[in-house]
Amino acid sequence: MASPKVGIIGIGLIGGSIALGLRKSGWASEIVGIDTNPEHQKKALSLRLVDRIATWQEAIDQVDVFVCAIPVDLLVALIPSVLDALKPGQVIIEVGSTKTPVFEALQNHPKRAQFVSTHPMAGTEFSGPEAAVQGLFVGKRGVICDKELSDPAAVALIEDLYRTGLEMNLIYMGSIEHDMHTAYISHISHICSFALANTVLEKEKNEARIFELASTGFESTVRLAKSSPETWSQIFHQNQENLLDVLDEYINTLLKYKGLMLSGSYEKLKEELGKANDIERILKG
Amino acid sequence: MASPKVGIIGIGLIGGSIALGLRKSGWASEIVGIDTNPEHQKKALSLRLVDRIATWQEAIDQVDVFVCAIPVDLLVALIPSVLDALKPGQVIIEVGSTKTPVFEALQNHPKRAQFVSTHPMAGTEFSGPEAAVQGLFVGKRGVICDKELSDPAAVALIEDLYRTGLEMNLIYMGSIEHDMHTAYISHISHICSFALANTVLEKEKNEARIFELASTGFESTVRLAKSSPETWSQIFHQNQENLLDVLDEYINTLLKYKGLMLSGSYEKLKEELGKANDIERILKG
Repeated sequence: MASPKVGIIGIGLIGGSIALGLRKSGWASEIVGIDTNPEHQKKALSLRLVDRIATWQEAIDQVDVFVCAIPVDLLVALIPSVLDALKPGQVIIEVGSTKTPVFEALQNHPKRAQFVSTHPMAGTEFSGPEAAVQGLFVGKRGVICDKELSDPAAVALIEDLYRTGLEMNLIYMGSIEHDMHTAYISHISHICSFALANTVLEKEKNEARIFELASTGFESTVRLAKSSPETWSQIFHQNQENLLDVLDEYINTLLKYKGLMLSGSYEKLKEELGKANDIERILKG
Repeated sequence: MASPKVGIIGIGLIGGSIALGLRKSGWASEIVGIDTNPEHQKKALSLRLVDRIATWQEAIDQVDVFVCAIPVDLLVALIPSVLDALKPGQVIIEVGSTKTPVFEALQNHPKRAQFVSTHPMAGTEFSGPEAAVQGLFVGKRGVICDKELSDPAAVALIEDLYRTGLEMNLIYMGSIEHDMHTAYISHISHICSFALANTVLEKEKNEARIFELASTGFESTVRLAKSSPETWSQIFHQNQENLLDVLDEYINTLLKYKGLMLSGSYEKLKEELGKANDIERILKG
């Protein structure tokens, strides 16, 4: 295939950043934006995220690869009908943060092999086309889920999109495993951060003091609380079962700390904090 | 006074970074290190954090300003006896993260006016002399507590140390107010982060997956979990009452999220997350 034509459905932080990456690497011969929001259309063009805007009906005749980067709750409704309309050889991927809902929605779809389930593990706390960032994905990890359910040629094309087009490193797993692991790592971090912001805002009625005393440590921990409530309430919904599991564990850990403090067991608390230090070694790989 | 001679008691992350700052700005004519740990002495000299190492007995005859940057639990024991030995005109400050314990320990000390209670609001998750960073404090906030209890000339000297020597912006409050506010902002962030690391390490027995899936969001939220268990278990101890208060509020917020998830009230959860977004506006000032 010559350089593919790519259609980005949903030109926000993720869709827009993918567009920027594919343009920079020259992987796509053309990048077409598909977005129902007129503001997003305008911004995507003025920021040169996409070469042009097309309707879905136009795009279906012009595009080789569709990248579906819309909120997770819309994905489940949209993906099956998009897949219905696909011609032989066309491929669609989605890049949402939970994989099981679409996995289930497509389980018996006759064109399932033209769909590749993926998750580029990168983001920022901002949203919308103006949040798109050049290089967002470079050197980060991309996940391909349930590879065996997709056509090998489709998988090879998408592997190349991720590796060559976005300069990402790929790992492979099942959708169910993916959602369990991301609950433990990505999703619970957002819960922690949102809850910390709510707590501090509730407690600190004197807002000036928050600003005056906030150190870089606080800013780092609370950074994710600036994230989109729409996006994240949906992700929490879609990954509810796993997230409740890890949330319980998190609350139990905090209650353990509280118990150690109340009983004056600071040596034991120090031990627990020491165990937490191990995260550094593991993050370094 | 000509440029003062400064004695740094405890040459770790904070003491070492203050030494680097005061050298860079030329505020101090000489920087003398006082540290009982021979390893720290060696490193402080080889990293040129201090001009020379002295014993406490030598330093008391040579230094104009002592900066006490040792762990908070040692401070309470040490500061009164250091103050006992001070000659007229000498000044001592401490730079710990909780102010009430020393405030109480010095309440009836005859030389209280030669002591200035301060807190430079900056740090990193690392510790020891090799963690000292040039420019750590530049543009950050320094707190001076209970200004009215110190000699005005001593306060003026220390204000100049912070403003000219370290290029910090000063704010003023009482020790009790300080400890309440830092619990809400700095200390609870550390609890969140340590507990998140413990939770994920406990849940994710397959360590490789943590590394593979960890995104920058997770790394940001868990960053403080790399902090020193000694330092932070002591800070939690010294600020126990305030911290338990905010920890309860934090746990309640998480339980509220959990309740909303269990009852499927994702619109209401979205509202809560939206309120958390307000932290951005407040951090911007």
